[in-house]
Amino acid sequence: MKNDFLYVEISNNIAGLIRNEVLKAGDRLPSVRMLCQEHGISMNTAKRIFLELEAQSLIESKPQSGYFVSRLLHRKPALPGVSKPLRTNGKEPDELIRKVYGSMRKGEVTFLSVGVLAKELLPIAKLNKELMHATRQLTGSGTEYESVPGNENLRRLVAARSIGWGGSLRENDLITTAGGMNALSFCMMALGKPGDTIAMESPCYPGSLQLAVSLGLKVLELPTHPTTGIEVDALKKVINKIDLCLLVPNFNTPLGSLMPEENKKEVVTLLAKHGIPLIEDDIYGDLYFSGQRPKCCKSFDKEGNVLLCSSFSKTLAPGYRVGWVAPGKYKHQILKLKWVHAISSSTVNNEAVANFLKSGRYDSHLRKLRLTLQQNYQYAVDAIAEYFPADTRISRPQGGLAAWVEFNKKVNTADLFDRAIKQKIGISPGRMYTLQNQFENCMRLSIGLYWTDELRQKLKTLGGIVSRM
Amino acid sequence: MKNDFLYVEISNNIAGLIRNEVLKAGDRLPSVRMLCQEHGISMNTAKRIFLELEAQSLIESKPQSGYFVSRLLHRKPALPGVSKPLRTNGKEPDELIRKVYGSMRKGEVTFLSVGVLAKELLPIAKLNKELMHATRQLTGSGTEYESVPGNENLRRLVAARSIGWGGSLRENDLITTAGGMNALSFCMMALGKPGDTIAMESPCYPGSLQLAVSLGLKVLELPTHPTTGIEVDALKKVINKIDLCLLVPNFNTPLGSLMPEENKKEVVTLLAKHGIPLIEDDIYGDLYFSGQRPKCCKSFDKEGNVLLCSSFSKTLAPGYRVGWVAPGKYKHQILKLKWVHAISSSTVNNEAVANFLKSGRYDSHLRKLRLTLQQNYQYAVDAIAEYFPADTRISRPQGGLAAWVEFNKKVNTADLFDRAIKQKIGISPGRMYTLQNQFENCMRLSIGLYWTDELRQKLKTLGGIVSRM
Repeated sequence: MKNDFLYVEISNNIAGLIRNEVLKAGDRLPSVRMLCQEHGISMNTAKRIFLELEAQSLIESKPQSGYFVSRLLHRKPALPGVSKPLRTNGKEPDELIRKVYGSMRKGEVTFLSVGVLAKELLPIAKLNKELMHATRQLTGSGTEYESVPGNENLRRLVAARSIGWGGSLRENDLITTAGGMNALSFCMMALGKPGDTIAMESPCYPGSLQLAVSLGLKVLELPTHPTTGIEVDALKKVINKIDLCLLVPNFNTPLGSLMPEENKKEVVTLLAKHGIPLIEDDIYGDLYFSGQRPKCCKSFDKEGNVLLCSSFSKTLAPGYRVGWVAPGKYKHQILKLKWVHAISSSTVNNEAVANFLKSGRYDSHLRKLRLTLQQNYQYAVDAIAEYFPADTRISRPQGGLAAWVEFNKKVNTADLFDRAIKQKIGISPGRMYTLQNQFENCMRLSIGLYWTDELRQKLKTLGGIVSRM
Repeated sequence: MKNDFLYVEISNNIAGLIRNEVLKAGDRLPSVRMLCQEHGISMNTAKRIFLELEAQSLIESKPQSGYFVSRLLHRKPALPGVSKPLRTNGKEPDELIRKVYGSMRKGEVTFLSVGVLAKELLPIAKLNKELMHATRQLTGSGTEYESVPGNENLRRLVAARSIGWGGSLRENDLITTAGGMNALSFCMMALGKPGDTIAMESPCYPGSLQLAVSLGLKVLELPTHPTTGIEVDALKKVINKIDLCLLVPNFNTPLGSLMPEENKKEVVTLLAKHGIPLIEDDIYGDLYFSGQRPKCCKSFDKEGNVLLCSSFSKTLAPGYRVGWVAPGKYKHQILKLKWVHAISSSTVNNEAVANFLKSGRYDSHLRKLRLTLQQNYQYAVDAIAEYFPADTRISRPQGGLAAWVEFNKKVNTADLFDRAIKQKIGISPGRMYTLQNQFENCMRLSIGLYWTDELRQKLKTLGGIVSRM
């Protein structure tokens, strides 16, 4: 209680200082430790205060430097709130999803929420060369099956990259899959049985929700902070009710949240203690905007309880269907599933991606891509600030391909979809990202688009439609 | 009873005439109709008599011409008997399968039972060209996802080919899959729930057995004739015990049997009447040795109850993972499964195969291939006759990639595997093709190998090992 009271008081005090410009844009705030000492509060309370101020867009953090008064104070839209998922028996947003995806096939529509990179951002010419190269390298030009675990070169190179996220994988820890969804599918099939409960972020990727439902799993959506991912305390509360957990700790879609390392560690320990396998989807991990490659939950996994899944669909070529899983102690089950459901991945594509990694081109591609994505995010924020109602909020991804936009409660984004599509603009309504009746005033915005003036105009048009709602 | 007695008598009479050379090699036998009139027996009994004589290798059929005394009378090994699958609670031959497949990775072993075509029989240079062509044709060079149903060109061309087997598919009836197993996997997942019973041929493809078991299905193995496939009467007897049926009516592996059209028709009607979906695996249908392309069960499907699956893995390029399913009235379920488990097939590979079909090269490739396969089968039969014990039997495929070899009961093919592998020869023991404790004296022989003198020598060596057992 004392802490709660102090929390509000200190938080309001600092906010007042900023709003009254006693603290000016760019000013440094006291460190977490100093705040503790000054007010006699716990580290957790001090952190909570900073997160709250950041959520109000009053301050911003700089890695390794601390917190500063936001430079975009008067332009930066606020952060959406922490999700408080409902526990009703919601239904799958099947019809909505069909409608939205159906519209993507219409060439003339500009889709502001595509889940993959625009082709202009892909190294297509180089990939074509690697494809040709692969046909020359492979026995039978890649007409033959691979071994069941998959392309050895690719597995070795992916394993070598694990050092980058604090892992220590070896070639034999990995099994290739036909894209990331195929990896998630094998993991859920191996570990969940109908009636089991799987915990996930909320909002989260529709494909994962649908996959779980199609396998007869019950989905428990966890309260999720737009910046720091799932609330660990919320997971603790339901730990005895779940059988399985799927998280996208690094820049998940649609929020773009990034779990802090201590949260990852805590979640891994908690789940291992309760014997609950963690499926970790890291498809966006390589797409950090700046600083260092974030660690994975797998980095803290001592017991082989984390099944790390990823793919090259979000960084290179979705159409190649090249993904992988490091299934820890569940390797035997996943191998068996791959054998009976797929036999082999696509031989040529896997070799081409392996060659691309080996040549060092993947890293230079990523370096360029990260800058573009960061820039795209800034463009999107600017457009939201300029063209959308003042109470529009947007999440603050530090990587990945998506941001989450929250409108005034009066704006129903399923209606917005219908109105926007008439102007040849496609959006992804928030209701798609949950099984519950929530997020009706939200939408996902892609930051993997190829930014042009035309695109900005489309966002302006969309902002106009929202304003009139 | 009368028929049973007559059947044995007439059959023995004709066999005697042949053995005593009253009827000589190449002589024409009376037609089925004449036999009926002559002895006052039914058409079915007459057919049974000819099949029995054929099984004893005393006569052979020529398409559209009738039956003749076998020209290979003193060389052609006898036909294996109709399988009488056990109904015990057999277990999966997991260990054996692991051992056998494990040995395939060792380069120096000559594997006499590979399930795919030797690379020398594939049009590799042309496929490489089509792959390059596809990267030039496709938006984003094939880095993008396909639509969920899959490549439109491919679906249109596959649909057009359906006329060849008496079908009338349209593009929209088809969904592409990552190879044939992926198609079977979606079908079984859509239609079977744990505890359900699925009927299959016996012996049958290990992958299908394992797939069913991995989904919690119980497998009921049906008595299967080496030439004409499952015994329809046996299916009738268990019709109330099964929930699902998977058949490979055209040149299945390992028997190479071909269901007569009337049997296909009867089975389709029977299953539809009982509301039991039929998954039809037609991956070998294009590989008929001579005469006409056999029809599919799907050709007789009026109610959309047949899910026809196939792929280009047995004719073109297993490593491309290009397959498809025509799911009839279950289209919606299969589309959903593809969406949640896979999203998309491999874009470039599907376009390359579509181009290959469109150019007419697929048909000319098949024409050449069929002759080779037929020749290979004859080589294999000759080798068996020459190098193996006289009581060795071999099935008589009229197409496909496999023949079934049955040894004297004393020859255990799991032991044979261990002995042969020391001579760098790999075989597939019969126990792999069933979940029951049977077929221990059988093995599958591939006829998709590239025939060389070295290969003949390997068969000679293997024959020697068998003789010493």
